Amino acid sequence: MIRTHDAGTLRAGDAGSTVTLAGWVARRRDHGGVIFVDLRDASGVVQVVFREGMESAHALRNEYCVQVTGEVTRRPEGNDNPELVTGEVEVTVSQLEILSEAAPLPLPVDDQVEAGDDVRLKYRYLDLRRSGPARAMRLRSAANQLARKVLHGRDFLEIETPTLTRSTPEGARDFLVPVRLQPGTWYALPQSPQLFKQLLMVGGMERYYQIARCYRDEDFRADRQPEFTQLDIEMSFVTEDDVIDLGEEIVATLWRELAGHEISQPIPRITWHDALDRYGSDKPDLRYGVELTELTDYLRGTEFRVFAGAIDAGGYVGAVVMPGGAGQSRKELDGWQDWAKARGARGLAYVVLDAESGEARGPVAKNLSAEHLAGLADAVGAKPGDAVFFAASAQRREAQELLGAARVEIAKRAGLVDESAWAFCWVVDAPMFEPASDQENGRAGGWTAVHHPFTSPNADWVDRFEEAPDRALAYAYDIVCNGNEIGGGSIRIHRGDVQRRVFDLLGISPEDAADKFGFLLEAFKYGPPPHGGIAFGWDRVCMLLSGAESIREVIAFPKTRGGFDPLTSAPTPITSQQRAEAGIDAKPKPAVPAHGGTAGVAAPVEPS
Amino acid sequence: MIRTHDAGTLRAGDAGSTVTLAGWVARRRDHGGVIFVDLRDASGVVQVVFREGMESAHALRNEYCVQVTGEVTRRPEGNDNPELVTGEVEVTVSQLEILSEAAPLPLPVDDQVEAGDDVRLKYRYLDLRRSGPARAMRLRSAANQLARKVLHGRDFLEIETPTLTRSTPEGARDFLVPVRLQPGTWYALPQSPQLFKQLLMVGGMERYYQIARCYRDEDFRADRQPEFTQLDIEMSFVTEDDVIDLGEEIVATLWRELAGHEISQPIPRITWHDALDRYGSDKPDLRYGVELTELTDYLRGTEFRVFAGAIDAGGYVGAVVMPGGAGQSRKELDGWQDWAKARGARGLAYVVLDAESGEARGPVAKNLSAEHLAGLADAVGAKPGDAVFFAASAQRREAQELLGAARVEIAKRAGLVDESAWAFCWVVDAPMFEPASDQENGRAGGWTAVHHPFTSPNADWVDRFEEAPDRALAYAYDIVCNGNEIGGGSIRIHRGDVQRRVFDLLGISPEDAADKFGFLLEAFKYGPPPHGGIAFGWDRVCMLLSGAESIREVIAFPKTRGGFDPLTSAPTPITSQQRAEAGIDAKPKPAVPAHGGTAGVAAPVEPS
Repeated sequence: MIRTHDAGTLRAGDAGSTVTLAGWVARRRDHGGVIFVDLRDASGVVQVVFREGMESAHALRNEYCVQVTGEVTRRPEGNDNPELVTGEVEVTVSQLEILSEAAPLPLPVDDQVEAGDDVRLKYRYLDLRRSGPARAMRLRSAANQLARKVLHGRDFLEIETPTLTRSTPEGARDFLVPVRLQPGTWYALPQSPQLFKQLLMVGGMERYYQIARCYRDEDFRADRQPEFTQLDIEMSFVTEDDVIDLGEEIVATLWRELAGHEISQPIPRITWHDALDRYGSDKPDLRYGVELTELTDYLRGTEFRVFAGAIDAGGYVGAVVMPGGAGQSRKELDGWQDWAKARGARGLAYVVLDAESGEARGPVAKNLSAEHLAGLADAVGAKPGDAVFFAASAQRREAQELLGAARVEIAKRAGLVDESAWAFCWVVDAPMFEPASDQENGRAGGWTAVHHPFTSPNADWVDRFEEAPDRALAYAYDIVCNGNEIGGGSIRIHRGDVQRRVFDLLGISPEDAADKFGFLLEAFKYGPPPHGGIAFGWDRVCMLLSGAESIREVIAFPKTRGGFDPLTSAPTPITSQQRAEAGIDAKPKPAVPAHGGTAGVAAPVEPS
Repeated sequence: MIRTHDAGTLRAGDAGSTVTLAGWVARRRDHGGVIFVDLRDASGVVQVVFREGMESAHALRNEYCVQVTGEVTRRPEGNDNPELVTGEVEVTVSQLEILSEAAPLPLPVDDQVEAGDDVRLKYRYLDLRRSGPARAMRLRSAANQLARKVLHGRDFLEIETPTLTRSTPEGARDFLVPVRLQPGTWYALPQSPQLFKQLLMVGGMERYYQIARCYRDEDFRADRQPEFTQLDIEMSFVTEDDVIDLGEEIVATLWRELAGHEISQPIPRITWHDALDRYGSDKPDLRYGVELTELTDYLRGTEFRVFAGAIDAGGYVGAVVMPGGAGQSRKELDGWQDWAKARGARGLAYVVLDAESGEARGPVAKNLSAEHLAGLADAVGAKPGDAVFFAASAQRREAQELLGAARVEIAKRAGLVDESAWAFCWVVDAPMFEPASDQENGRAGGWTAVHHPFTSPNADWVDRFEEAPDRALAYAYDIVCNGNEIGGGSIRIHRGDVQRRVFDLLGISPEDAADKFGFLLEAFKYGPPPHGGIAFGWDRVCMLLSGAESIREVIAFPKTRGGFDPLTSAPTPITSQQRAEAGIDAKPKPAVPAHGGTAGVAAPVEPS
């Protein structure tokens, strides 16, 4: 090393020793003939002093990279800097080498300065010199190690799965890679290691994990990246409780070590249906109450057409209370209508309860009977001065999710969110199926898998999910933190007969199944063990742990919307030579099996 | 868990306890009414016994997945199986559940059976149930943890770098990925994290590592995979010795813990030129001697045209001795000619020294003078009964590498390789440049970088490498184990002036440089630290540790030649819909910057 000490480690006890440091000029101040420089390296900052005879120090500018040798000295009385852990000392430099110079900075390396995302990402290497971004990288590295420690403590194997693989139909689009050596054919980048981790279970590996890069070619709403990372886990011979237990240990370890928060265990479990009923969300934020109330029965018989229509259609009417919401201005209340419309709803019906009299007023009040109005506050648990928002729909989930979104917005506007709180829950007993849209399966009235088609029905439903697909429940579970889904998984189907019945219900013909998942179905002929797993959205976990607002903050070189990398300017056009070489425009040779994954019945080589 | 114990953990001390196990039927034997089954899980094997009343056990076939409950009993006197760690006990089953059945096996799950690679990879999930492949997966997982432990002990950060990135010109071709959201533009999969890890150093991360997936679209000679893994490391403020020291600690830890071998440290270092001179290879196998001898001076003046031509051209003549090689049959000696021709040489000149008289015979002997023949044995260190192979070329390296390959072949044929030995060395002081072929730079007489163009000249050459590019040396080092390069790296150039001079020598114009590496050069304007690193070929390291012959053995789902995956049948053709959606045939919009990586001079936002 071209230094003897890390800058951030020097203390009063080092006074008198000669040290060589190397790092960056974080700040320079001239006082008469003396130049003070805050020298920063990965360990921290120390003040170095250039006195007479060190004229070369005049050349120093911010972010020059330097090596200095000098004596550690106790700072003069009264000059200690209590904000620096090295603040009792300074280094009086006797030798300076400028290792490299810095041009004027496009992005100040200064924790106090707010810079735009575009310039931060274009000059990410300067951004990373700031303490916040550097801390996020350190936290993520530590999170990896903590999770691995838990997993190795339980005899998990870390196994890498391929990333140049076969296009498989999951929710999103695959990224594709042309194959020069087999012109006209393509690899796909995996959306997850799902199929491979199940194959590893068939292979008897029993306990697998991987911090896996995954790829999803989605439209970049909000905070998505085309490549992302998940902590991917699969286990054999387990029940749902085993996976949940492991998940809790990982999460508890991370939050204890990296957020200083002891998660009280067991983490509460809520069924998917309860989560929708109470919070209008399958990832409820439990840092606050503001629960939904169903009013379908209470309002039965109402003449208000909006509610009556939903009730008559076998749907749902419900409400959520905004504490103190009656105090909102007309403009604020109108704002809720805009908010609802922005979400695709027609509006958000409400009444406000007079702060003095408790009298219900507002557009909906006129439409409700005196009896319904009189009992309303009790029915929804509202007090005088509160506002009550309603949603009604023939589709129960649609109305609940509108109220759930309103609930989140209420908490925000009413200041009900304790930003220092951590609220975890497991959402369990998720539905197996939901009605398919016409586009999804090309026929009306079909079903689609809520998770993926390998998710196991639970014991109650495994023998009869066809009876009521909309009510059938899966061994599927998500873990939620402060309203963010941070992980999810399921017990998988390991029985061929059950898998066939699920495919039948989903309208996946044996030929389709063989075409799409043939190699997995083939594997499942050979004694697959019961198995299940979980995957944590690692970017999101690290984001929450670091207190960041975006997953970009915990990714070394993230992309912006549209998948653009401001630093390298990727993606770029390719040359015609690259195009020709890569075989992009070649027709596949007929010799290459188009859908060889099916494999058919294997020829036995050993009588059993 | 649906079991209480792991099968491989049962011991005599467990006798009397009731256990539930889950695993696979490894072997079944019927003795009268009693059925014995070897039950295998990830932990090992135990014998389970089905006595009267357990008729359901008759249905069991190999590789059925089962759950059994029963009592652990001491085996009857004389029935212990000392080859099993569980061999003192058996489990008398009272309850059997068949978890899943197995069809007749296309690949026997039997360590004794040799199966072809194609069937093994197509049914890799059955292959992995065998003890050898399973052990290789466990070893690799352990290797990861051991390396990480060393690195975290030295405060390294694990940082993920992007895999959807910009096409950059390195040695091999990039895999390309069309970008649907920016039709007509493409990502490239990285051949290594090289540029990003250097950017992390510019970003002040100081100590980075990653077990990184890399991609190289090469023709699949021998043992290559289109995706492979490297343990990738970069450090700031270091010298070559620091990187070598870290590399040694990693390698020593791995071999100590996983191969039971204590590497004696320091690992010997040999210069690149010495390695070529002595072993004819930049990755010498030091498990045996058989060194090369240069004869250029000794044979100066010879009338043998082959040698004289090389000498006159300023080239090289040398020899390598095959101990006992005189005993080879004429056919064996002829076989060496075929061997040489297969390597692209014209042949391999040799003399054999008579075992009794020491007299030199053979085709070359006739062409050499009596004096040259008389002193030959001494000159090359040969004894009566040995054979001496010669190579001569105007290109020193070409002749040395032929002798180096002959050396390896000699050791093999003469049985000189101690297969239990581990011989490590560092090859240091590698050359910076080599003459470029015309194709490489489109002009004669140019130079190309032996490593990559960011490799730093060493202190001797940094100020004058232009004087003799062929002799200029780099701070570049490889670590070699038993003739396999298992890792390599360099100290990088961090000075802009040196980088420009290297580009000049390589014939890379400022415009080309900006086009190809613009973002890195831009970064290097802002106080880059001195830095260097190393990357270990992780597949190869794990292969050597596991004693395997191919890297495929330590990859969970490897591909065969041509990048084909026998399991999933990837790659496959894509549909016209996929093709259209992915924007493969779109022309890039002019709005997208074609080569925005250059960035130009950044506008300062802060005076320094």
